[in-house]
Amino acid sequence: MAYKLFIPGPIEVSEKTYKAMTEHLVGHRSKDFVALMEKIQPDLQKLFFTKDPVYLSTSSSWGVMEGAIRNVCKKGVLNCANGAFSDKWYDVSLRCGKYAEELKFDWGKPVDPEALDKALSTGKFDAVTIIHNETSTGTMSDICALSEVLKKYPDVVSIVDTVSSFSAMPIKKDELGIDVMLAGCQKAMAIPPGLAFLTVSQKALERAKTVEGRGYYFDFLEFQKFYEKNQTPSTPVISLIYALRSKIEDINSEGLENRYARHLENNKIVREWGYNYGFELFPEEKYSSITLNCFKNNLDVDIVAVNEQLKKRFNMMINCGYGKIKGKTFRISNMGDETPETMRELLSNLDSILPEYLKK
Amino acid sequence: MAYKLFIPGPIEVSEKTYKAMTEHLVGHRSKDFVALMEKIQPDLQKLFFTKDPVYLSTSSSWGVMEGAIRNVCKKGVLNCANGAFSDKWYDVSLRCGKYAEELKFDWGKPVDPEALDKALSTGKFDAVTIIHNETSTGTMSDICALSEVLKKYPDVVSIVDTVSSFSAMPIKKDELGIDVMLAGCQKAMAIPPGLAFLTVSQKALERAKTVEGRGYYFDFLEFQKFYEKNQTPSTPVISLIYALRSKIEDINSEGLENRYARHLENNKIVREWGYNYGFELFPEEKYSSITLNCFKNNLDVDIVAVNEQLKKRFNMMINCGYGKIKGKTFRISNMGDETPETMRELLSNLDSILPEYLKK
Repeated sequence: MAYKLFIPGPIEVSEKTYKAMTEHLVGHRSKDFVALMEKIQPDLQKLFFTKDPVYLSTSSSWGVMEGAIRNVCKKGVLNCANGAFSDKWYDVSLRCGKYAEELKFDWGKPVDPEALDKALSTGKFDAVTIIHNETSTGTMSDICALSEVLKKYPDVVSIVDTVSSFSAMPIKKDELGIDVMLAGCQKAMAIPPGLAFLTVSQKALERAKTVEGRGYYFDFLEFQKFYEKNQTPSTPVISLIYALRSKIEDINSEGLENRYARHLENNKIVREWGYNYGFELFPEEKYSSITLNCFKNNLDVDIVAVNEQLKKRFNMMINCGYGKIKGKTFRISNMGDETPETMRELLSNLDSILPEYLKK
Repeated sequence: MAYKLFIPGPIEVSEKTYKAMTEHLVGHRSKDFVALMEKIQPDLQKLFFTKDPVYLSTSSSWGVMEGAIRNVCKKGVLNCANGAFSDKWYDVSLRCGKYAEELKFDWGKPVDPEALDKALSTGKFDAVTIIHNETSTGTMSDICALSEVLKKYPDVVSIVDTVSSFSAMPIKKDELGIDVMLAGCQKAMAIPPGLAFLTVSQKALERAKTVEGRGYYFDFLEFQKFYEKNQTPSTPVISLIYALRSKIEDINSEGLENRYARHLENNKIVREWGYNYGFELFPEEKYSSITLNCFKNNLDVDIVAVNEQLKKRFNMMINCGYGKIKGKTFRISNMGDETPETMRELLSNLDSILPEYLKK
């Protein structure tokens, strides 16, 4: 039984996108594939606000998150950790055999620019990881302020995960001076999971040339070599690239500014709905994500039961928290193709369930 | 313009499989996803003839080929190299920072059991890689003979790539004593690319526990941890797992023995067709693949032009050789859903093109 996903990824996929996936396959070394890659590249660069190449990786985002560590870290990596995914990135760095330190913040807090500055000034690191939008806590760090700090450290390669913010708001890679920016397809792009995007600066490519043990599958230099032929190093997930082409058409029809405004509006509708019930945001409002709202379950609602009712009665699903804040928070995504109307439909369904679960 | 693929991967995908991909997504941490994984696991184990778990990797086969090296090689890996992909595996091992040696054979020759024995007897290696069916040259090594050799070396973890033979013939992992057996989805399984399968013995898992720098994305122990929950470590390519479930239904309806016999028959039809023209097989017939025929272009046909005609006039495509034997060979796949009828249709189309290109 199909039910509509308002979880923060994978999210709801349109019929058009599903259909795009069924386009007949071509060989990945054929002219037809080259033409496909050539066609989508300028649009991908626009979405990343970059002149650097955008590579396609057949993997989930974790693949390129790990790959980036293996490619650019020689001396040591500073992992800014303020939620489940950014905490884990530190662990992954260690598992790659790298020297790594955590710059730790409480969950729900953003990455603090001053603390970043202080940590980088030690000179211990030649790479840094930041998750722009921590999906686990719905917390969005101030990437502009952080990038000002990063600019002071030209020897540090910055790796910024925009998995759940990419394409929902402008994140201007080149202007911000981000070296490696990566994203997944199953968040705001509303494509089924299995494809990751990454764009890599010349500085990061130069660094990669000097790093041993990069391997092959996520090697930046291999991506670059095949990028120059409008191909991918190994067999790509072609059906999702068809879906990507279709989604790019959608984005172009809507216009980027409209797309950004729509995400903001959707987000605000949910936030105000939550406030009306008396729910508080898990992060400080100023740092609350614009692609999802992570609410504290401060009204002590049986949120799992609410979600089950939502699924059973309305074929919809939200999320009941992630990692150590599971059950203590709930998350509603507003990414992708949602509109104020579809968000209001979800909320009105929740309205017909929630009251009976609210404690008197 | 859609054209039918008789290249050795990706291959032709059925309408049923394409449609399966469009099933509505579920969250990968949901009960629905767990149920999906639970359902397909026993069938995957049957296809691999194993009691070991079969993991699903969101990547092309190269991902798990690299991952296997990172997981089980401590002392050194012997890479049996007899074609483009197996040669490259040696290179990939080096790129992972491992001590590696090539056991080199001419392209078109199988991996020789005696040579394997001699190399392993040096005691320099704790891991070995073999590509069962070298797609680049259409050469199939004798896995039974090789596995007899491997059994003499219990401290060596064997990694066998069955990317382009898996499910087209019985390769009995447990009986053969293979430790790590891996395959892709876009070959005989006739699923669009982007999903890889791997099954790992207890011995290989124990080894992995002792190896540093395994990373996260392809870490066997992570796969195992999530396998136990019927999940995957990171967000999986759900749509292709739907396609896999659909393909498993097809395989069960047909029956394994029928499936194997059909692949053999298809293969023979093509082979005899080639012989009739005077084409020779690139490998020795005894070691020629049963999922594709790689013919020498000994009649010096402009095979690229033939293929263009085939595409233009009949919406079909074969392959004109790979790597250093491009143009000097051509390859016709008979993997997947093809039947004697569909193979004969291809060949009859080629018959109406070839004569005008044959030198007098």
